[in-house]
Amino acid sequence: MSKMERPFDEELKALKEKLLGMASRAEEQIALAIRGLKDREEKLACQVLDREESINLLDIEIDEMCMRLLALRQPMATDLRFITSAMKISNDLERIGDLAVNIAERTIDLLKSPQLKPLIDIPRMAQMSQDMVRDALNAFVNLDDKLARDVCERDDKVDHLNNQVFRELLTYMMEDPGTISRAVDLILVGRHLERIADHATNIGEDVIYMVKGKTIKHHIEEGGRATHLKSCPVDK
Amino acid sequence: MSKMERPFDEELKALKEKLLGMASRAEEQIALAIRGLKDREEKLACQVLDREESINLLDIEIDEMCMRLLALRQPMATDLRFITSAMKISNDLERIGDLAVNIAERTIDLLKSPQLKPLIDIPRMAQMSQDMVRDALNAFVNLDDKLARDVCERDDKVDHLNNQVFRELLTYMMEDPGTISRAVDLILVGRHLERIADHATNIGEDVIYMVKGKTIKHHIEEGGRATHLKSCPVDK
Repeated sequence: MSKMERPFDEELKALKEKLLGMASRAEEQIALAIRGLKDREEKLACQVLDREESINLLDIEIDEMCMRLLALRQPMATDLRFITSAMKISNDLERIGDLAVNIAERTIDLLKSPQLKPLIDIPRMAQMSQDMVRDALNAFVNLDDKLARDVCERDDKVDHLNNQVFRELLTYMMEDPGTISRAVDLILVGRHLERIADHATNIGEDVIYMVKGKTIKHHIEEGGRATHLKSCPVDK
Repeated sequence: MSKMERPFDEELKALKEKLLGMASRAEEQIALAIRGLKDREEKLACQVLDREESINLLDIEIDEMCMRLLALRQPMATDLRFITSAMKISNDLERIGDLAVNIAERTIDLLKSPQLKPLIDIPRMAQMSQDMVRDALNAFVNLDDKLARDVCERDDKVDHLNNQVFRELLTYMMEDPGTISRAVDLILVGRHLERIADHATNIGEDVIYMVKGKTIKHHIEEGGRATHLKSCPVDK
């Protein structure tokens, strides 16, 4: 039986598997990038750069699978939502891959100088972000909106840890200007991890939308105003 | 004639107009955020935070318009591609709106201290990014792949300017640790603008794909390997 003749359910299953494969590839990239940074192994950073292309190719393949399903199967309701969500998720995973590359680039720069400090919080943030990516994808394939909601809630913890990392590194720079360029590199790594968590959160939000048919994107549920508005000094 | 009964062409036209409206709203947000930063006007920064929600709502509206068109019209070929591209572009514009908010947040922080330096390069980067967003959207509605390609090519200039801004700010910090926290804020503003240009480039790539039916995403055209690989020290 040729690929084109497969029943629709099997095509959807193949799409799910492809996305799960892409997600574990993205997780591996984060882990590899952070291991390279923590253990000061340039080889690992370079592996991240080398493997980026395979994630980019998966993004293109998934996009084409989805376009084909939309064109040939003309799906309705649930399946239509599943396929358009898959396109968005693939896009988020591709960006996560880019961010792992950005971390590897910072690592290559950092390895030109002695280690600033042993890293504790950054690997913790990385682990949290990786878990969020994996759980977001599991929520997607199992249509588990409870797990998806849990992923979204974890985003604040990563933001909090990133602020902590940021403040600590500012202190280093203030005390010793010789640390500035390395501290800035680590601040950027923290930002990249924070953004990985944001992408996992986007995926979680897409899953909730898909399952519940309701948009929690942009915190509309929380009264219609984004939370940061509360911190605008003019509002006070 | 009710909305649901409109001919397909008119619905596509309405989608185009909605996207153009969202793009000019995103452009305005960048301009407002940078004006607030340059002229040290907290009120402008707060306006950016206040207006974010309207962009988020447009993203949701466009998403729903697209889903409805996919479900009810079951478009083929060109129209299908146009609609799935519109969903992606709306996503990019929403992220551009978020980045303008991030710039406004940095501004609010920066206004707590005296001005570090008059800003020249950052407003230039902002202007370039804004132009890229507007041209990318014009390329989309006019199916102009030449203009889209031009947008993608301008991305390098923004990256270059950002590296220049970054290096200059590092020098400030090295010379006077009292500038560190302000310089870091400005480095982050530079990054946000660079990412706005990246999103405009994504849109440009989508337009080329849509018009030419060929993916230039991820530099596949340029020999299959991402250019930064060349800078990996292990490869040398």
